[in-house]
Amino acid sequence: MGPAGFFIARLMTLDFQKAGGLVTAVVQDHASGRVLMVAYMNEEAFRATVESGFATFYSRSRGKLWRKGESSGHRLAIRRISADCDLDAVLLQVEPLGPGVCHEGYQSCFFRTLENGEWKVSEPRAYDPEAVYGARP
Amino acid sequence: MGPAGFFIARLMTLDFQKAGGLVTAVVQDHASGRVLMVAYMNEEAFRATVESGFATFYSRSRGKLWRKGESSGHRLAIRRISADCDLDAVLLQVEPLGPGVCHEGYQSCFFRTLENGEWKVSEPRAYDPEAVYGARP
Repeated sequence: MGPAGFFIARLMTLDFQKAGGLVTAVVQDHASGRVLMVAYMNEEAFRATVESGFATFYSRSRGKLWRKGESSGHRLAIRRISADCDLDAVLLQVEPLGPGVCHEGYQSCFFRTLENGEWKVSEPRAYDPEAVYGARP
Repeated sequence: MGPAGFFIARLMTLDFQKAGGLVTAVVQDHASGRVLMVAYMNEEAFRATVESGFATFYSRSRGKLWRKGESSGHRLAIRRISADCDLDAVLLQVEPLGPGVCHEGYQSCFFRTLENGEWKVSEPRAYDPEAVYGARP
C-alpha cells in the first residue's frame, strides 16, 4: 500500500455506519466563528473534501454528492477539520468564498432565532438568491 | 387553546419528520464561539430544552431523553436558539456550566484535528472524566 492508500485508510476511522453511512458535518467560519450550516457526508464526500480542500457533502434529499458552491460559486475552502469523540461528526472550519452559504440568501443557514416561542428572521439577506441560483418555478 | 398550547404549536414548525423524528443540534459556547458538541433532539427533547432553559437531547444509542449534565453536573444553560433554513437543525448558543462538555474530559467533543491524514488529539483534557463519571468497567 503506497502513501495515498495509507492516507485513505487512516481517514476511514470515521464511523460512517452509525447513521446509515453518513456523518454530520458542522460548518463554521474560521475567522468569525459563526456557525454557517449543517450538512452530511458519506465516505466519498469526506474523501472529496479532504482531497480537494473544498467542502463536499452528501445531499440526503437528492441522494447524491453535493459539491457546495457548484451552482452559486460560493465554495467553502477548508482551513481545519476536527472530529468528535464518537467519530460520527466533523467540524469544518472554512473560509467561505462568497457572501453567504444559505440558498435563501443569508450568510448563515441559521438566520432564524427563537423569540417568545416563534422563529423570527434575525438578520438581513446577504445576497439575492434569484440572481445567484435563477428564479425557481 | 391557551397561551401555553399556542406556544407549543409554534415550536412544532421544526421538521422532526425528515430524519426519523430527530433534528440535529449544534452546541456552541456563546462567549468563545467554540463548537462544543453535536447531538440530536426529538420533539420532547426540544420542548424540554425550551421550557427548562437547559439543553436536553435524545440519545440515539440509549434510545431515551438525555438531560445533558444529569450525571456530571455540566449542564448547558441556553442563551439563544436558532433554526436553519430547512428547519431540521438547531444551533444552541450556551453557557457551559463546568469545565467541559465531552465525556472523555475535554472542553469540546471536537478535540481531534486532521493532520496529514491522521486524527490527532489537539488539546489537553479539561477535567478527569473518571473523577466526574466514576471509573468505567
